Amino acid sequence: MRTFHIEKPDERLRAAIQDKIDNLNKPKGSLGVLEELAMQICMAQQTLSPRLSHPCHLLFGGDHGIEREGVSVSPREVTWQQMMNFTRGGGGVNMFCRQHGFRLRIIDVGVDYDLSSVGGIIDRKIARGTRNFLHEPAMSEEEFDRAIDVGCEMADQCADEGCNILCIGEMGIANTSASSIWMHLLGNIQLDECIGAGAGLNTPGILHKREILTKAVNHFNVQSSMFNVQGSKFILRYFGGFEMIAAIGAMLRAAELKMLVMVDGFIMSACMLAASQLYPDVLSYAIFGHQGDESGHKLMLQLMNARPLLHLGMRLGEGTGALCAYPIVESAVRMVNEMNNFQNANITKYF
Amino acid sequence: MRTFHIEKPDERLRAAIQDKIDNLNKPKGSLGVLEELAMQICMAQQTLSPRLSHPCHLLFGGDHGIEREGVSVSPREVTWQQMMNFTRGGGGVNMFCRQHGFRLRIIDVGVDYDLSSVGGIIDRKIARGTRNFLHEPAMSEEEFDRAIDVGCEMADQCADEGCNILCIGEMGIANTSASSIWMHLLGNIQLDECIGAGAGLNTPGILHKREILTKAVNHFNVQSSMFNVQGSKFILRYFGGFEMIAAIGAMLRAAELKMLVMVDGFIMSACMLAASQLYPDVLSYAIFGHQGDESGHKLMLQLMNARPLLHLGMRLGEGTGALCAYPIVESAVRMVNEMNNFQNANITKYF
Repeated sequence: MRTFHIEKPDERLRAAIQDKIDNLNKPKGSLGVLEELAMQICMAQQTLSPRLSHPCHLLFGGDHGIEREGVSVSPREVTWQQMMNFTRGGGGVNMFCRQHGFRLRIIDVGVDYDLSSVGGIIDRKIARGTRNFLHEPAMSEEEFDRAIDVGCEMADQCADEGCNILCIGEMGIANTSASSIWMHLLGNIQLDECIGAGAGLNTPGILHKREILTKAVNHFNVQSSMFNVQGSKFILRYFGGFEMIAAIGAMLRAAELKMLVMVDGFIMSACMLAASQLYPDVLSYAIFGHQGDESGHKLMLQLMNARPLLHLGMRLGEGTGALCAYPIVESAVRMVNEMNNFQNANITKYF
Repeated sequence: MRTFHIEKPDERLRAAIQDKIDNLNKPKGSLGVLEELAMQICMAQQTLSPRLSHPCHLLFGGDHGIEREGVSVSPREVTWQQMMNFTRGGGGVNMFCRQHGFRLRIIDVGVDYDLSSVGGIIDRKIARGTRNFLHEPAMSEEEFDRAIDVGCEMADQCADEGCNILCIGEMGIANTSASSIWMHLLGNIQLDECIGAGAGLNTPGILHKREILTKAVNHFNVQSSMFNVQGSKFILRYFGGFEMIAAIGAMLRAAELKMLVMVDGFIMSACMLAASQLYPDVLSYAIFGHQGDESGHKLMLQLMNARPLLHLGMRLGEGTGALCAYPIVESAVRMVNEMNNFQNANITKYF
């Protein structure tokens, strides 16, 4: 895996930014989260006049070996069917990209279906799905590195177009299972607290998912102690999906390029958790869009001290929660750039 | 006060709308609040293909006699100064109107300053501020009726332009005090639970505000029992600001015209509470944009079974919280109109 050089924003600008925000014509702090968000964006961009340009959305798709164990409410073929649907503009991700002016890239990193001739899908397939982590690592080290590189390549393409804010989403049936285990092992949280309904499992379904994931983790623990393999990277490639590893690559490369990264729900939060364990400073560039109802998401966000912008009970994936939060980010930027301060507004400063 | 004829949406369409939403290519319910919002909008517009057209924002300004008692962190002149600032485009409300394509109308219903020659302010001044409700009713019955009519006139102007979604905000130093008392008397909630920091009072400031408002309510109770005057309308005109009564007029007229009404924070919620006590069906058309930190706002929203879209800790007023929520409303409408259903997306229906 390549190395990333992610710079923590220089603290020296903080006071000047705070001063600018505090002098806008409003009671101090009265724009709440918008003010905190504006601070983060100004710091990440190291400027008093932030801007958002050419927002892009990366949608990585991949299948999961663990799907064979019946851990998801949806069958495997939904992954490729949805990938096709996205190319026709009829998915959830499409309408929100249109609404907010995001350029959408749909990338096949590991879908279990031949999509190579489908227009509108970027073909970076590493394999037709990962292996089943109930029995073996989902991917090899070499495959892991390739997935990271795909993410970097996509972030680079966006940056080359002038994009400075990236949103990332995924399509991969069963990827809440992989995310739950990452959260358990990386966050040191009881597995039970990491497992939820995914896209819509009922109670027996959740119990079955828990049984399978518990077995998988037990097997992994035996394996890793036997071979004395440790560390985050091994956990990531053992359980991860190609689309998730690619997302991590994109997150890290984006932060390296000082781009803002909008983080979606449970799965993308798991990817950001993973990314932040490798490079903690990636969090300076992360904007958390949405807190879903997936049990455990709140806990995971707490691990990163994240305060997501929206709470709309969404659980569709694809990056839709983060996309819906984009106007709030725009509002924060407008506040800094467009709102008069007390002096030029000729208003008695209240306090 | 004129009579309003507000129709409750016809329930017969509900099943067909639900069926359309459930067949979009997503796990049932996975777009969370967007799905509930889409239902409300479709019902209010009585259609399976809702639309939002020519969004308008009404900003009513007025001063309050009670300001003389030092209940607000800001001095009275901030009302007119901000009204002027809005005409120059530098206020909070301006930038969010620009961002979301809202046409802004700034209406002077009772500012204590001569704004009649200021371009960009619609002059409907009823008086230079209300009277001090510590000692007497804030306005007469005739003034109350005129304020209601101003609100109606503005809603009509918007409707004439093709607007079907109205956002309403206010500028009026000390209007959280009026709102707190309305909430106490209309909602039957302990006065203490209705009083908060307003735009930024400290603890001694809040204690002083509580003392003044308690005195005012006690005096009112004596007065109203003496003259045997009762009912919501008397409470509204005794404590209300002209900008608040005008907002109620606009809300009721908008609902009568089947327009959607976006409700902002504490003050606009108090107005919607008042409107809904006069005409309960107005709530079918009300979309609550933002829940602020003003203590009591949550309680007040509960009185109306309202679930606001955003929780961003904003307390600027002007309608800014509601405006920031507008893209969520747009997203809900896009969902209904643009998302493929399972059949035309060629996707295996999950369940």
